[in-house]
Amino acid sequence: MAAARSMVVDVVAVGTELLMGETVNTNATWLSQQLVEAGLNVYHHRTVGDNPARLKAVVQQALQGADALIFTGGLGPTDDDLTVATLAQCFEAPLVSDAASEAAIKAFFIAKGQVHSPSNLKQALRPAQGVAIANPIGTAPGLSWTVMVDGVAKHLIALPGVPREMKAMWPDALQALQAFAASQGYPCTVLAKTMVHCFGMGESKIGEILSDVMAQANPSVAPYVGHSEVRLRVAAQAKTQAQAQAMLVPVVATIRERLGAVVFGEGESVSVEALIAEALTRRGQTLSVAESCTGGYVSHLLTNVPGSSAYTTLNAVTYSNAQKTALLGVPQALLAQHGAVSEPVAAAMAQGIQRLSGSQWALSLTGIAGPEGGSDDKPVGLVWIGLAFPDGRVETRSVQVNAKQGREHVKHWFAQYALHGLRDALEAAAL
Amino acid sequence: MAAARSMVVDVVAVGTELLMGETVNTNATWLSQQLVEAGLNVYHHRTVGDNPARLKAVVQQALQGADALIFTGGLGPTDDDLTVATLAQCFEAPLVSDAASEAAIKAFFIAKGQVHSPSNLKQALRPAQGVAIANPIGTAPGLSWTVMVDGVAKHLIALPGVPREMKAMWPDALQALQAFAASQGYPCTVLAKTMVHCFGMGESKIGEILSDVMAQANPSVAPYVGHSEVRLRVAAQAKTQAQAQAMLVPVVATIRERLGAVVFGEGESVSVEALIAEALTRRGQTLSVAESCTGGYVSHLLTNVPGSSAYTTLNAVTYSNAQKTALLGVPQALLAQHGAVSEPVAAAMAQGIQRLSGSQWALSLTGIAGPEGGSDDKPVGLVWIGLAFPDGRVETRSVQVNAKQGREHVKHWFAQYALHGLRDALEAAAL
Repeated sequence: MAAARSMVVDVVAVGTELLMGETVNTNATWLSQQLVEAGLNVYHHRTVGDNPARLKAVVQQALQGADALIFTGGLGPTDDDLTVATLAQCFEAPLVSDAASEAAIKAFFIAKGQVHSPSNLKQALRPAQGVAIANPIGTAPGLSWTVMVDGVAKHLIALPGVPREMKAMWPDALQALQAFAASQGYPCTVLAKTMVHCFGMGESKIGEILSDVMAQANPSVAPYVGHSEVRLRVAAQAKTQAQAQAMLVPVVATIRERLGAVVFGEGESVSVEALIAEALTRRGQTLSVAESCTGGYVSHLLTNVPGSSAYTTLNAVTYSNAQKTALLGVPQALLAQHGAVSEPVAAAMAQGIQRLSGSQWALSLTGIAGPEGGSDDKPVGLVWIGLAFPDGRVETRSVQVNAKQGREHVKHWFAQYALHGLRDALEAAAL
Repeated sequence: MAAARSMVVDVVAVGTELLMGETVNTNATWLSQQLVEAGLNVYHHRTVGDNPARLKAVVQQALQGADALIFTGGLGPTDDDLTVATLAQCFEAPLVSDAASEAAIKAFFIAKGQVHSPSNLKQALRPAQGVAIANPIGTAPGLSWTVMVDGVAKHLIALPGVPREMKAMWPDALQALQAFAASQGYPCTVLAKTMVHCFGMGESKIGEILSDVMAQANPSVAPYVGHSEVRLRVAAQAKTQAQAQAMLVPVVATIRERLGAVVFGEGESVSVEALIAEALTRRGQTLSVAESCTGGYVSHLLTNVPGSSAYTTLNAVTYSNAQKTALLGVPQALLAQHGAVSEPVAAAMAQGIQRLSGSQWALSLTGIAGPEGGSDDKPVGLVWIGLAFPDGRVETRSVQVNAKQGREHVKHWFAQYALHGLRDALEAAAL
């Protein structure tokens, strides 16, 4: 029993609007999250339109690999809502009207001061051997039904496509699935998971360094590539949450050991802005930013953090050379001699905004976001970043990013390098 | 030939992260939109994890009903990226290295000053009879491959899972699909389409006003709800491009007539920032922004437009009251009497940044982005916007946006109202 795999539950979304690209299938994502957290396996999502023949074929295909299926959508009162009727046809099961569902539908309309239409009573139909799942907020009851396929028991759950209704009915659906799993002798495991956040190394390099760790099945390690960071999902299955959590620990330790400073955080929602916010708030210090090429994006990211007014006083976007001099006091001679995108100008910008704002920390960026404005000497994608410390020290660095993906992408990478550099400095200064 | 149905193209998304509920399958939605607009049928979406045996089974199931399949995902450099290798296995086809892809991958890393890793060259492999689709922004080439299934030709397209890369490669993929459709004798219609961009009216209201127009099949009008604007896709199918284009004209005219000033642009990629950029550049005028609540987001949006340095000199994020006074000259008495989020402060901020920067136009925003900081009097989601004109006039307006969706959403709406107000003013001033 301990060696057996968990039950496989696949998701089938029913609705032509999904295939037309009118609606994003967030239901499949949400159901997957719930199933995975409950320690169940999801091997497939399938989407099919409001077409009985194609739905029937999908049910037959889906039942080949799965122990249970969750349907979402097609439970409405109109003619094209055909999930329950089609499932009944698949197993040649008679439909009966569910007394409790019928009463609930009638009560639903009475409560609204309306009268139900005959099509609403269609929603009370269920296969004779199935069980209705009550819908606390709408007229479409769900269905929970164990069927036999070539002598093997399989379980079908049908839920509405309206996300609020589906979610409200989920606890009952999960209970039915778990009861079926237990009846079939499936092991009951629970899942523990965490996310390791990395910056400054690409997915392929990380994949090489961790190839042995990523080859393991339990705990599993899977990379997700974001806009600039790589996240590693670490997940473990065990009999108890404590056991599963304990299994995560050595894997995360190995990842941290091998990747070093590339790992900047662990947990579901870690962002570099939030880490900076936390460090500044803890110390009661303030930060100012003087941006050129990023045009306010760094300031935008920093102020996305709720409560950022605690450490933000003034940020400036000095796009023109004249304003770099007028507002920040960058000497004209420096601009003339080195150009705006240069180490001394980045340093002078950081010092200038620090002086103007009175902030303890100051960050500056001056670079070439493109697509125009680059040269052999200073190509698009080059940025100089300045960081002024509370003690008056200024550090600078330059980064060259890939400019092929366009201006917004370049701005994003510039901002990420600046923010991660600041985070490193805040962390080091904390020691 | 005329009566025959259009080709059926199904979508297969490959990636365990989708089945774990980590990522919403927006790729399937986007691909469906493109396929439907091109007059092709989509009957199924399927999602499968990074598992060769299950991917193989899904390919076999999917090919039963579809003429062509589009795969998205599983083209990366790591071991769990297995789409191309698995497709080759399905049809027992040898893999060869594509010379152009190999050269492109090497050049990609050279441009970044890096060296490719051996795993990157895996991405250059394709079935001997397949054709690589170039990836203009990443290392993963796509695949276009006609295979035979029980004597019937079927077409396979593989694209990366990274949305930007998939979208960049879509024109080549669509061309390959259309060539295949023509080779199989499917009816060939061409599609003409345009996008009408609306701001300031919700989807349901637009749907009511245009219900008769939206009920038509050809030309079709479908709404896409973006972050703040509603876009109306108008598409017509005909035998020639000229005929299809001609069919669009009266529909767009009707939409413009009924929605009036709500329509702010027409075409694939219309943005309010780009319209502002165009108006300012044409006149040789400059613009400055003083932001509080939006924290640099308006400046970020404006500087996303290439060439924005032509009209941007200085933008400021004055988060603290002290900096509103120190930098922008907002009288302390005004702040004390009316509070930072008020009409007179918005006006004074706009005048202050106009004076400081010497810009002809100046925009200001002061509001409450939340989640904290609201009051009965001034709730979260309230913003005052100031606009200073070249003649010294200042206009103000307040907007209350829905704060339920969180801080970033509120910042976005504030920025959109400010930018659309500026665009209206620039347009009116042009007359």
